[in-house]
Amino acid sequence: MQIARDERELRARRAQLPEPVGFIPTMGALHAGHLSLVARARSECASVVVSIFVNPLQFGPSEDYDLYPRTPERDCELLAAQQVDLTFMPAQAVMYPVSPVVSVDPGDLDKHFEGARRPGHFRGVATVVLKLLQMVAPQRAYFGRKDAQQLAIIQGMVRDLNVPVEIVGCPTVREKDGLALSSRNAYLSPAERAAAVRLSAALRSIAERLRAGETDIHAMIAHATQLLPPLETDYLGVVVPDAFVPLATAPPKSHLLVVGAALAGKTRLIDNIEAQTP
Amino acid sequence: MQIARDERELRARRAQLPEPVGFIPTMGALHAGHLSLVARARSECASVVVSIFVNPLQFGPSEDYDLYPRTPERDCELLAAQQVDLTFMPAQAVMYPVSPVVSVDPGDLDKHFEGARRPGHFRGVATVVLKLLQMVAPQRAYFGRKDAQQLAIIQGMVRDLNVPVEIVGCPTVREKDGLALSSRNAYLSPAERAAAVRLSAALRSIAERLRAGETDIHAMIAHATQLLPPLETDYLGVVVPDAFVPLATAPPKSHLLVVGAALAGKTRLIDNIEAQTP
Repeated sequence: MQIARDERELRARRAQLPEPVGFIPTMGALHAGHLSLVARARSECASVVVSIFVNPLQFGPSEDYDLYPRTPERDCELLAAQQVDLTFMPAQAVMYPVSPVVSVDPGDLDKHFEGARRPGHFRGVATVVLKLLQMVAPQRAYFGRKDAQQLAIIQGMVRDLNVPVEIVGCPTVREKDGLALSSRNAYLSPAERAAAVRLSAALRSIAERLRAGETDIHAMIAHATQLLPPLETDYLGVVVPDAFVPLATAPPKSHLLVVGAALAGKTRLIDNIEAQTP
Repeated sequence: MQIARDERELRARRAQLPEPVGFIPTMGALHAGHLSLVARARSECASVVVSIFVNPLQFGPSEDYDLYPRTPERDCELLAAQQVDLTFMPAQAVMYPVSPVVSVDPGDLDKHFEGARRPGHFRGVATVVLKLLQMVAPQRAYFGRKDAQQLAIIQGMVRDLNVPVEIVGCPTVREKDGLALSSRNAYLSPAERAAAVRLSAALRSIAERLRAGETDIHAMIAHATQLLPPLETDYLGVVVPDAFVPLATAPPKSHLLVVGAALAGKTRLIDNIEAQTP
């Protein structure tokens, strides 16, 4: 596996790779969720490129940028074992040689849920992903469905800005008890880890009611909220996957997403589950 | 000269062109200023691509989108005569098949001068230029220095978003009396046309004082403003070319731009002149 640390090196090595090139942008601290994206790209593409960059632009001032887990040696071992061709590990000065002025604005896609809780987060995500797509120039880029609003914003960005890449959304990888894998799960104490499963259980309860034909989303949320303690509810909601505006009433014959966030101690968990209405 | 009218056709024809590809995005109504960009690209690149698209996203609700001059047959004749390889003439539904949600935010670069007078203008410009750059994938793109703030924003965008293209700024083409060429000059009555030259004269008066070592920019602007009538002053200012924040005092040994806008009747004229301070 080759490693590139600056843009010139990345572009030179990328130019030598057989196409199609599949790309997985990550912040490192890799887990089985990331590796499922790598395996998917490996199975579909002639070459696989991964980036590892903890992007300061997507962390709020009170968030965990400094604390975010960093395990570069282990990450590289995992990626090499998955036959990744090229890993891009830029320093902050490579990605942001000057303080960036121009950025990607997610528009109405970040006005609710994660976007409302984390002002500037998705602008930072969209901007760094566009930068990486410009540098790596992949034919396909792979994102987990666990970060559903992020996926909707990346898909909207690629559509609205005509970026020549296919965005592939991949299934959320879960622990046996249903907890969605996340690098931030490393923060959980054993008691918090035990409680964390309640988020996916609450989302499933809403999804089951939607599938059964219930339409009053506020009532479904009220019921599901009672399932969350000792987790502290941040939000529960139901959206059309590419819009991320909270629905009050479930429309019939629709493909919807049930989204939620909750706190386990100081650790914020997010998750989502698909639901088809009858 | 080939003409492409949708993205698929454009990408297919672009893929056949020898590189480097030089690109000139325009809104049509071509004049000698545009043609100087085409000639520069022709002299530096193996292939030349021009786009003609009157971009609704960069016009304000009270601006001249409907009135903007459109001369597509004549434009194509001029481009063919300049040995342009490929002209992209998309319909609005090709550029904006859905109402765009994600856009390029020029950040602090559009907070003054044109950006302050025309809210959303540069967001529209940056967004459509990024879309076109993604579709055309040129090695070089050519812009006139007459739209200096636009050039600064495009350069900032390419830098901050790592777009793999070299932005080439080209000298403003002027009439013999000094008036900068603009498609909007077509709106001018003979009397307005005669008065229009006063804008470049006012900018020159500021530039001469800067070169002579004067530092009080407010005093220079006050003097130059008296040179403008019968033009109505919109703004005069002095900036560092890549920042576009109004300066109050001219720094020594600096490369500066004197910028201005004025109204000739209902027609808005903009212009700028470089000045080096001692």
